[in-house]
Amino acid sequence: MLKLYGFSVSNYYNMVKHALLEKGLAFEEVAFYAGQSPEALAISPRGKVPVLEVEQGFVNETSVILQYLEDTQAGPALLPKAPFERAQVLALAKEIELYIELPARACFAEAFFGMSVPDAIKEKAKGELLLGIASLGRHGKFAPYVAGDSLSIADLYFLYSVSLACAVGKKLFELDLLAELPAARALLERLQETPIAQRINADKEAGMPAFLAMIASRK
Amino acid sequence: MLKLYGFSVSNYYNMVKHALLEKGLAFEEVAFYAGQSPEALAISPRGKVPVLEVEQGFVNETSVILQYLEDTQAGPALLPKAPFERAQVLALAKEIELYIELPARACFAEAFFGMSVPDAIKEKAKGELLLGIASLGRHGKFAPYVAGDSLSIADLYFLYSVSLACAVGKKLFELDLLAELPAARALLERLQETPIAQRINADKEAGMPAFLAMIASRK
Repeated sequence: MLKLYGFSVSNYYNMVKHALLEKGLAFEEVAFYAGQSPEALAISPRGKVPVLEVEQGFVNETSVILQYLEDTQAGPALLPKAPFERAQVLALAKEIELYIELPARACFAEAFFGMSVPDAIKEKAKGELLLGIASLGRHGKFAPYVAGDSLSIADLYFLYSVSLACAVGKKLFELDLLAELPAARALLERLQETPIAQRINADKEAGMPAFLAMIASRK
Repeated sequence: MLKLYGFSVSNYYNMVKHALLEKGLAFEEVAFYAGQSPEALAISPRGKVPVLEVEQGFVNETSVILQYLEDTQAGPALLPKAPFERAQVLALAKEIELYIELPARACFAEAFFGMSVPDAIKEKAKGELLLGIASLGRHGKFAPYVAGDSLSIADLYFLYSVSLACAVGKKLFELDLLAELPAARALLERLQETPIAQRINADKEAGMPAFLAMIASRK
């Protein structure tokens, strides 16, 4: 059976978990906080989550796991088969990751975990976030899904990254990142209300105390 | 015919150009500095290079273009067909991009263009670079190529990103990033000596004066 390593507070972990649930696949969740121990690095080369264990070994990096599932598993497709349309979905997912998730992530320590982030890093992140959201507004279709008429990998990035980026925007910069993208905001709310997203969110809340204890122990 | 938009100083542009040359495909190079003008943003949603124009429209994001070429074009394969092996190549490429290219890139302005980068950003980049290189040493096979016995997309990321990261490490941090990875260093040198890499490097040098003039005009 597929084994998903990670923890339920990780938004990347939740993208893969969402895909597994959406496809109706059987999988086992393995609690794994990663980090730089030799044991963790034997599973994940950079000490990150999630990791998928399959018969032949480990597959890491969220975008790679999502494509691997698409290439090997049954269930509803989350990528178009046609290469050009497939490329648009993958580009949207990549844009969300590089231009929204990553600048937001540079601020997570201050926005969510009571630590402080240097002003130079916050200022850079703010500028990048604004450009990243503008890019999403330009490339995204929101008709009604991010890449068009069906749920895709781009929606998983959108749901689990843009929601956190919006929280960072609000908490640190007093910005409403989706103010000019009403169709995006409506999609985000609709995705958050789906049973799969609700289940994943409940698991996230249940896992939060253990996660915060782990963070505190590593400080 | 395929049209590649970008400029020859961009290492991402050169990854795609290298793939096109490696596959022996006909393509036209279109000079494009991207940026935030409406004209540029109509081609590239986040104002980045490279962009590939195909019959149906534009494909952006280097990793997506490389996979699109693999899915649609003839010539030597740069990705294995088997899903698990394919995933390992894609994960290596992604790790190089996220954990080596991006922290190095945060320092390009100071390392290459005479500007200055805040200390907080440089310190963060230095720590990430060291972890990224260690991760590459752990996951890379270098036997003799990054992912094993044949040239792949991971080698293109390696050639065009790790070389710049090494220059950043040396210039800003007095670090020899490949000091403990002799097989990686040998591969980098071997890849740099290939006729395709030599041609791309000559184009890069020829394009440098115009690129520097563009940078100066945007300051």
